[in-house]
Amino acid sequence: MSLLAVGSIAFDCIRTPYGEVENILGGSATFFSVTASWFTSVSVVAVVGEDFGDEHLRVFHDRSIDTRGVEKVPGRTFRWKGEYVGDMNQAHTLETQLNVFESFVPKIPPAYLDSQFLFLGNIVPVLQLNVRRALPNLKASALDTMNYWIQGMPEELAKVLATVEILLINEGEARMLSQQGNLKKAADHIRKLGPRVVVIKRGEHGATLFTPDSVFTVPAFLLDEVRDPTGAGDTFAGGFMGHLARTGDLSDANLRRGAVYGSVMGSFAVEEFGLTRLLRLTQGEIESRYREIKLSTQFDG
Amino acid sequence: MSLLAVGSIAFDCIRTPYGEVENILGGSATFFSVTASWFTSVSVVAVVGEDFGDEHLRVFHDRSIDTRGVEKVPGRTFRWKGEYVGDMNQAHTLETQLNVFESFVPKIPPAYLDSQFLFLGNIVPVLQLNVRRALPNLKASALDTMNYWIQGMPEELAKVLATVEILLINEGEARMLSQQGNLKKAADHIRKLGPRVVVIKRGEHGATLFTPDSVFTVPAFLLDEVRDPTGAGDTFAGGFMGHLARTGDLSDANLRRGAVYGSVMGSFAVEEFGLTRLLRLTQGEIESRYREIKLSTQFDG
Repeated sequence: MSLLAVGSIAFDCIRTPYGEVENILGGSATFFSVTASWFTSVSVVAVVGEDFGDEHLRVFHDRSIDTRGVEKVPGRTFRWKGEYVGDMNQAHTLETQLNVFESFVPKIPPAYLDSQFLFLGNIVPVLQLNVRRALPNLKASALDTMNYWIQGMPEELAKVLATVEILLINEGEARMLSQQGNLKKAADHIRKLGPRVVVIKRGEHGATLFTPDSVFTVPAFLLDEVRDPTGAGDTFAGGFMGHLARTGDLSDANLRRGAVYGSVMGSFAVEEFGLTRLLRLTQGEIESRYREIKLSTQFDG
Repeated sequence: MSLLAVGSIAFDCIRTPYGEVENILGGSATFFSVTASWFTSVSVVAVVGEDFGDEHLRVFHDRSIDTRGVEKVPGRTFRWKGEYVGDMNQAHTLETQLNVFESFVPKIPPAYLDSQFLFLGNIVPVLQLNVRRALPNLKASALDTMNYWIQGMPEELAKVLATVEILLINEGEARMLSQQGNLKKAADHIRKLGPRVVVIKRGEHGATLFTPDSVFTVPAFLLDEVRDPTGAGDTFAGGFMGHLARTGDLSDANLRRGAVYGSVMGSFAVEEFGLTRLLRLTQGEIESRYREIKLSTQFDG
């Protein structure tokens, strides 16, 4: 089934203990859509500036991603500069240039109106709400958000939360949103705000999926090297939603499989800088890592 | 099979956001042996002072723990005072009185010399080594250690590490010991120092078991309330080693079951202060939580 992503397209400058890159393609909509393209057909709504060339658009087209919703406007594309040090668990933002993203108003092309799955990447809650309302025939929608909106726009965020089936959120932000230190209570609290399903992303510790009927934890795949954590959360979301859209199945068993694919894809994302690893995957590698996670979590008795 | 624990017996004063207790029974050998007593017959080598009364000894005897190796000497028992704040992930030590523990020299009663499983709780490495050497007929021995010995007595620690089959260690201390930030590399490095099996304890994120053949991650059981994390690590070790000693089986599949029992027992320990919850368990509760962890980690496809 068709999956629509709304979010940012950016040029990132990233420094980690493994190296430094300048102006590479990034942003939530980018990581999400490239990842989900391994599972289903994906379309994107985002904004870019005049510095966004055909070579950048080609990255999407090579993955058969529909970019009719990527609007090009006068000005420069969103730029982010960040650094990871030590255990690389936290990005330190060195510079943010919102540029054309500052006045982004998502416009849904008519061809996208029959989308069945929606991912609302981390943008202003009121824009997320407008997109959600423009798509009445969804089978499921998922939301990502961050501390900035939780603290700065709680009422607007509450409105959009009430309209989505799935919230994907970091552990710390789940605690902030719910004002509950305990993870289980945090998820219970958030589920009362709207989403039937809450996925708490726990970075190097994997993710925990809360549904009305059960709790499920998937670990992160243990890598030899983590070179660049940028985009890991959106990549997790891309694997999770990609699998749901591919199957059209929202059962608990399938949500679990989705979370495992999220973990699989997140583990690929961080192996190399930016999109590098996500662009040269094979279906075999994805399935092989899925099985490896299965082998590393199963026990009897 | 018989399981021997060597470590500390202490009186703890503990403050957490859930309350405060004074001079309750604690220490590594205490948490370990009470926990393991739910799985197999356990004996203890430790030292206590004149303030250690029959009512304290009765706690062990009520769990059928053999205390012939608990030596009573002039002076006061080891005392620890600590506090947990915020997310309670870290104990803040307010006071340590080593007392009789300062000159502790473990003495193994002759009746213990045929022990088949050994847990060397977190004490001076040279004492751990002496105990290990005094027991030549072990089927398996496990070691716990901490930053203090890793930094202060690396050579002595290396000697005892070379003699044990299993190391149980915190995530941060595994990184410190191996000087590897990456968890998988840390475990590989440590396994070259001696232990065939490395269990990295990850607190609220569970534990990861590394053997020559595979990696296994078990999450922590998600609780509604964590009231007192004291002893969680030794309790994990007690469930893990208790299950291994009960079954006498060191296969990968059984090591995994042991790690799950470790996680189960750790989750009980932190529900209430000190030993409270561990003393009023039932076998049914243990098995029920084992099944709940299984339900929260299984997926197909």
